[in-house]
Amino acid sequence: MTVAVVVGAGPGLGSALCRRFAEGGMTVVAARRSRGELEPLAREIGGRAYECDVADADSVTALFEAVDRNLGPPDLVVFNAGAFRPSRVLEIDPGEFERCWRVGCLGGLNVGQAALKRMVPAGRGTLILTGATAALRGGKGFANLAVPKFGLRALAQSMAREVGPQGVHVAHTIIDGQIQNEARGANYSEAERGEDALLKPEGIAETYWQLHQQPRSAWTHELDLRPWMEPF
Amino acid sequence: MTVAVVVGAGPGLGSALCRRFAEGGMTVVAARRSRGELEPLAREIGGRAYECDVADADSVTALFEAVDRNLGPPDLVVFNAGAFRPSRVLEIDPGEFERCWRVGCLGGLNVGQAALKRMVPAGRGTLILTGATAALRGGKGFANLAVPKFGLRALAQSMAREVGPQGVHVAHTIIDGQIQNEARGANYSEAERGEDALLKPEGIAETYWQLHQQPRSAWTHELDLRPWMEPF
Amino acid sequence: MTVAVVVGAGPGLGSALCRRFAEGGMTVVAARRSRGELEPLAREIGGRAYECDVADADSVTALFEAVDRNLGPPDLVVFNAGAFRPSRVLEIDPGEFERCWRVGCLGGLNVGQAALKRMVPAGRGTLILTGATAALRGGKGFANLAVPKFGLRALAQSMAREVGPQGVHVAHTIIDGQIQNEARGANYSEAERGEDALLKPEGIAETYWQLHQQPRSAWTHELDLRPWMEPF
Amino acid sequence: MTVAVVVGAGPGLGSALCRRFAEGGMTVVAARRSRGELEPLAREIGGRAYECDVADADSVTALFEAVDRNLGPPDLVVFNAGAFRPSRVLEIDPGEFERCWRVGCLGGLNVGQAALKRMVPAGRGTLILTGATAALRGGKGFANLAVPKFGLRALAQSMAREVGPQGVHVAHTIIDGQIQNEARGANYSEAERGEDALLKPEGIAETYWQLHQQPRSAWTHELDLRPWMEPF
Repeated sequence: MTVAVVVGAGPGLGSALCRRFAEGGMTVVAARRSRGELEPLAREIGGRAYECDVADADSVTALFEAVDRNLGPPDLVVFNAGAFRPSRVLEIDPGEFERCWRVGCLGGLNVGQAALKRMVPAGRGTLILTGATAALRGGKGFANLAVPKFGLRALAQSMAREVGPQGVHVAHTIIDGQIQNEARGANYSEAERGEDALLKPEGIAETYWQLHQQPRSAWTHELDLRPWMEPF
Repeated sequence: MTVAVVVGAGPGLGSALCRRFAEGGMTVVAARRSRGELEPLAREIGGRAYECDVADADSVTALFEAVDRNLGPPDLVVFNAGAFRPSRVLEIDPGEFERCWRVGCLGGLNVGQAALKRMVPAGRGTLILTGATAALRGGKGFANLAVPKFGLRALAQSMAREVGPQGVHVAHTIIDGQIQNEARGANYSEAERGEDALLKPEGIAETYWQLHQQPRSAWTHELDLRPWMEPF
Repeated sequence: MTVAVVVGAGPGLGSALCRRFAEGGMTVVAARRSRGELEPLAREIGGRAYECDVADADSVTALFEAVDRNLGPPDLVVFNAGAFRPSRVLEIDPGEFERCWRVGCLGGLNVGQAALKRMVPAGRGTLILTGATAALRGGKGFANLAVPKFGLRALAQSMAREVGPQGVHVAHTIIDGQIQNEARGANYSEAERGEDALLKPEGIAETYWQLHQQPRSAWTHELDLRPWMEPF
Repeated sequence: MTVAVVVGAGPGLGSALCRRFAEGGMTVVAARRSRGELEPLAREIGGRAYECDVADADSVTALFEAVDRNLGPPDLVVFNAGAFRPSRVLEIDPGEFERCWRVGCLGGLNVGQAALKRMVPAGRGTLILTGATAALRGGKGFANLAVPKFGLRALAQSMAREVGPQGVHVAHTIIDGQIQNEARGANYSEAERGEDALLKPEGIAETYWQLHQQPRSAWTHELDLRPWMEPF
């Protein structure tokens, strides 16, 4: 049995990742702040649902210890959590700024440490961190997103350079564009924006799966993903 | 029948790409400057071998016209040609500098135009251009490589932005590290450098194949590839 | 009278900035966590010394209110604070990780907001944030530095895009190499490393001064600074 | 007597550079393809005007030999030439593509080699290459500009890494926005775009001058320049 843990298993990309990994034969752990919403997904894919607050190191430790006990150490971990509300720098509340960073970047350290602690001794495993265009560019009104995403990218690079030669694959994705999910589907119908104008979670999930399949002789550390019509 | 054209089908990556695409069910055209060396590969994969000098627009035109006549318009084209000899800037011969650029960058325009001319009207197709770490960094003694590779990356970006919304997928790869092939195998044995310490052509080829499989709702424009032990 | 505030006025670059701005005719406020060490500098340049903990929004607010009261709104503000201890990702203490970020990045928000709140209504002013190579690259053992520095760069970009068209110049520097100061002078004598092999604070300070002199028709947002012998 | 050579001394930035360097006390050589247009400028600044086709290595060699004979080896050289007509990749004429590259990038090699050949033995000197936003991004319709500008940036990096430790300062500028000159003034009046909405050549020239003034203990290799209102 191989085990995948998706932390930040929201209704869009997170759920699609869980389904793709299950389809690939892995036992999948879906974690997010409120477990309730995950139960139907967990049942559907024969996996497990856990509550986890990524900004809280103890909560992350508890998650991975539960996974160890029940399923064994993970082979594939995805950090997919984030929080963000657009705001001009002059209007940002420092407490909100810090909260966004604690979820989107400190959370990446907490989850990354828990994953690598198990993968490095095994000499294998894949850790994928979900980034965004805001990891490359601090746009107007986006400091609250760009600061954690830049930071997560920095962390992913340090991790890759440190544990790559120990056999662990760390990858960082640049998601460029809106991901289609139920909530957004209501606002931006495909009829308006055109077919395939939003990122489909299944397409992204397939690329994450392929990252996990790469042999260690040819690893990708970073790639971008955007819909065909997205200006960039 | 779907058709793939690999321009710059050398013994390492080029051949592996041809084999992977044939394995995926495509009819494969392998092109390089001397067709003779390609005949055994073409026979092995049931494909075709053509001579092509990428720096010569007429030669590229002739190649794609022959493909049109014999197989139909290509679905997947890879530009994989390059020429390079390390040299300090003060010792570079301007003629050599220009020759490296004509093969590595003007060749990309010639092949790219031929590919896109056929793909844009069809509203689909994939063009992949092989880049290198030298596309991101002009190192000591590497101007002869970095200038064409930076240029090829610029070209890939302009092409992607122009033809993406017309349904054509343009991708650029950053190959970071040495690719294992027979010639290099003799010099750098795995015993010396360690297992999987060189990029295996088959691993790279698989990633190119996956780029071609991506649905248009989630395309990758750029990704890097390196062996697990490679410092970066 | 024009006013400059240097937050993070340590013995190396910070002090050199204070001296250069005073030499340029500005009244200079030097701030750092322990005012005591600043008194001689403040006396030397006829300026003021204040205590300030950049990670504490209230402390930053108090600093800028004191400057308002005593000298008037600042024309030039430099954020030059940072804290860092190298550590592999697996050995990083999450509390330490957060502390480094709070000083190096949240501190930038606190100081930046205080500066911009005064400059935007005036329609002019310069804010310079001190970055490092670690703002561009997450190296082995450097996550604790790269995460805040990447984040500070993101913040600087968002700020520049937001307040540039309101007349305020935001610049970010990439300091690449060690800065010579008394502490380091003891360890790395010039005799060992060669003449001018370390960044001289006076040279950096001159470039900061020139950034402040740039007319709004030709502003630099980002530049790097390194000694001639530094590999990069 | 110190000597500056500006290659690509057009009516906007090129002329401003010549004036600024003359004002700084240097003897200035202004070179461009048609010397006639330079004569009034040369007279104004007490300098010299030469014809030079940067794409032709012999023409560049002749220019620098004439400078050697008449004034002595240059202390400061600026490569400021370029040629460009926007065009979609599918409509680019390969001959035009090559011509743009020969002027904008091969020209940089020719001028750079001539400059460095004289500066390296002296162990000092400054070479500045004028880049553009198109050096960082291949936009729609801009391949003809981005390919030479990416290439020039690659070349500048290799040169800086090679000759920096020999005492020669190589810098690359990212000019982001339109430069005001007579021709453009006619089309984009300040009244329409707003005050200081275009890059003023004098402002850019001042920054080039400051680059030449930097002590070798704190050199800038790359910086950007844009007007305050320019979106980026």
